[in-house]
Amino acid sequence: MTTETRVREQALAAKRAARTLAALSSATKTTALMRMAEALTGNVDALQSANQLDLDAGQANDLTKAMLDRLALTQKVIDGMADGLRQIAALPDPVGNVDRMWVRPNGLRIGKMRVPLGVVGIIYESRPNVTADAAGLCIKSGNAVVLRGGSEAIHSNTAIVRLLRSAAAESGLPAEAIQIVETTDRRAVGELLKLDDIIDVIVPRGGKGLIRFVMENSTIPVVKHEDGICHTYVDRRANLDMAEGIAYNAKVQRPSVCNAMETLLVHADVADEFLPRIAARLTAAGVELRGCERTRHLLPEAAAATEDDWRTEYLDLILSVRVVDSLDDAVAHIEEYGSHHSDAIVTDDYEAAQRFLLDVDSATVYVNASTRFTDGYEFGLGAEVGISTQKLHARGPMGIDELTTYKYIVYGSGQVRG
Amino acid sequence: MTTETRVREQALAAKRAARTLAALSSATKTTALMRMAEALTGNVDALQSANQLDLDAGQANDLTKAMLDRLALTQKVIDGMADGLRQIAALPDPVGNVDRMWVRPNGLRIGKMRVPLGVVGIIYESRPNVTADAAGLCIKSGNAVVLRGGSEAIHSNTAIVRLLRSAAAESGLPAEAIQIVETTDRRAVGELLKLDDIIDVIVPRGGKGLIRFVMENSTIPVVKHEDGICHTYVDRRANLDMAEGIAYNAKVQRPSVCNAMETLLVHADVADEFLPRIAARLTAAGVELRGCERTRHLLPEAAAATEDDWRTEYLDLILSVRVVDSLDDAVAHIEEYGSHHSDAIVTDDYEAAQRFLLDVDSATVYVNASTRFTDGYEFGLGAEVGISTQKLHARGPMGIDELTTYKYIVYGSGQVRG
Repeated sequence: MTTETRVREQALAAKRAARTLAALSSATKTTALMRMAEALTGNVDALQSANQLDLDAGQANDLTKAMLDRLALTQKVIDGMADGLRQIAALPDPVGNVDRMWVRPNGLRIGKMRVPLGVVGIIYESRPNVTADAAGLCIKSGNAVVLRGGSEAIHSNTAIVRLLRSAAAESGLPAEAIQIVETTDRRAVGELLKLDDIIDVIVPRGGKGLIRFVMENSTIPVVKHEDGICHTYVDRRANLDMAEGIAYNAKVQRPSVCNAMETLLVHADVADEFLPRIAARLTAAGVELRGCERTRHLLPEAAAATEDDWRTEYLDLILSVRVVDSLDDAVAHIEEYGSHHSDAIVTDDYEAAQRFLLDVDSATVYVNASTRFTDGYEFGLGAEVGISTQKLHARGPMGIDELTTYKYIVYGSGQVRG
Repeated sequence: MTTETRVREQALAAKRAARTLAALSSATKTTALMRMAEALTGNVDALQSANQLDLDAGQANDLTKAMLDRLALTQKVIDGMADGLRQIAALPDPVGNVDRMWVRPNGLRIGKMRVPLGVVGIIYESRPNVTADAAGLCIKSGNAVVLRGGSEAIHSNTAIVRLLRSAAAESGLPAEAIQIVETTDRRAVGELLKLDDIIDVIVPRGGKGLIRFVMENSTIPVVKHEDGICHTYVDRRANLDMAEGIAYNAKVQRPSVCNAMETLLVHADVADEFLPRIAARLTAAGVELRGCERTRHLLPEAAAATEDDWRTEYLDLILSVRVVDSLDDAVAHIEEYGSHHSDAIVTDDYEAAQRFLLDVDSATVYVNASTRFTDGYEFGLGAEVGISTQKLHARGPMGIDELTTYKYIVYGSGQVRG
């Protein structure tokens, strides 16, 4: 069988399973998710010996220590996957909820009912724990899933899926609802992206190259997850203690993630007082500063920021800093250079707060809080499939509700159109 | 300037205008829409002389009478466009509404605010009245719009847009918010579909070829509007008088539209009684019948339906008819051959009604009503941009709410992540 045929058959099997899955009760899905968690913690040896094959191959292929760490299925990572599945099991099930129902003058009762999307395709890189999370979120929301992980984690991902499938089958779920593309042949991805008659949505998770490839080659709708170039703007009427706490947290607490701050904007009226303070704390934490000319006048130790710096997601202990003359200039900078992910203002000024909230066109806009809160758990949505940077369908943290769509249901009593 | 450069510059101008538009009050947008309506009814001569150029070209190119009729800007069509704009003006403005707001344990207040998508690209064929409708809906929902109509209506569309733009400008709206691609060069469409850094969504309205071309070539998210292969299933416990009224209405009242019935499914237990009755009424109305073998046994005058018939959107006075043995068989037929647009059951059986609503995976599912109601006005949503047959973002009638997205707004008091 060719790679293309195999991928298509897997997707078709997922589609058939999706119809069964959509009709299952919440109780059945919950039981299955709990058993899937047990299957992982009860088979640590099997998971780790599959994982060892990936780690050996990774070492042979000169993966960095950081990459090997991300790849490793330690006891802690396996427990984390199982906990994740249990948390997903505990979330409320959105399927079948009717958000509202209204009556038309002719007596038709029209409601919008939440239903699963159908088949979700997830294309991701590296970390094998995404395999369990993604499968769990899809099952909970009544969707079948076709997974395509990175080739460096192929043995680990396949072992995880094998355990999840058998636990699903034991709980009365169709095992075919969880599919993994078991080949490292790149043609498999190209084929997957053209199955618009079978797969309802593609969620790519990974680097820029992967996201771009998916956008350019998919005929299936895509929910994309791109850069987080996040800003904190310290207004002229900011509480500077609060600003220091928020900016420090947004940069330092976990610099490698998409909701960490990459650029600090400071109003000229408070730059003299604020910049030396925050710079001292950031520098002590090992942060490298790159500033505009006015910043460097106040912080001679900062390197000169280039045009490229404003557009860079460092994901590291590096921060670009710019002094601005007004709220408008801050918003203009964010709109020009930002990625519409998460941006914050620190201010005690009522009008500045409201204007920033309205004028900044980002998935999440904050007043007086760290951008690090952009996350499904922190928002109270539960686990997330990712953080969408597009505007269609889902924006910001994408949880199980965003893995559903709706259908209109109409109760009539013989109405015909005149 | 090349076609590609020109299209890109128009889209960029739209994007700049979108930022202004997003911040305008409902009152300003309402005034502008009312003036746009006046601009059309006050300039009938200008519209009709532009339209005459298209009609002359159409005649020279041997367009059919039906096509020329659709192209003509009669007084009635112009009044209809103006009425449409006034109705859009009267709709509630969704922009800025916060659907819900909740408080996290750490005190963060998180809300989901409705905001415009930004720039909407609409690619459509034929009827010039779509130009005014689409522009009106986009303006109302705070979006800039880039329109690309069919080449056969280029003079009419351009004349309509010129009037709308000047009315917009007089009302304090940026004229640049309404763009029309004024060339018939097909490369313009190809370029438009690649502007994913500028345009937020593409809505194609037209035939299969256009929709497929857009899906295959767009790197911008697409909301597509495809076939309506709609079914009416007459259950074994249907009220046959009601079934007759509903089936007749769904087929005959306006056969050329996407929510008209194309296939009638009848339970074997009532086929003997029901089929001759409905066939007599349909035949009298000029409907050509194509049936399965069991149907033809009861209705010898019906032609034999082929496998292709079940998959065809006739948009005409033709109906395929099939006798089925159960609700399950009816649902299986709909899932196999339907287009997931609108499907109805006629039944007095409570369980059959509930099961049909849950099991049929279509944008709108009816009990005891004609599929002809799938329409933004009939649902009480106001005017519609189209009827989506996809699952992402918008499903079924797509009105002004579906031309918006949301952003998370977060009110804090200094929260940082631990």
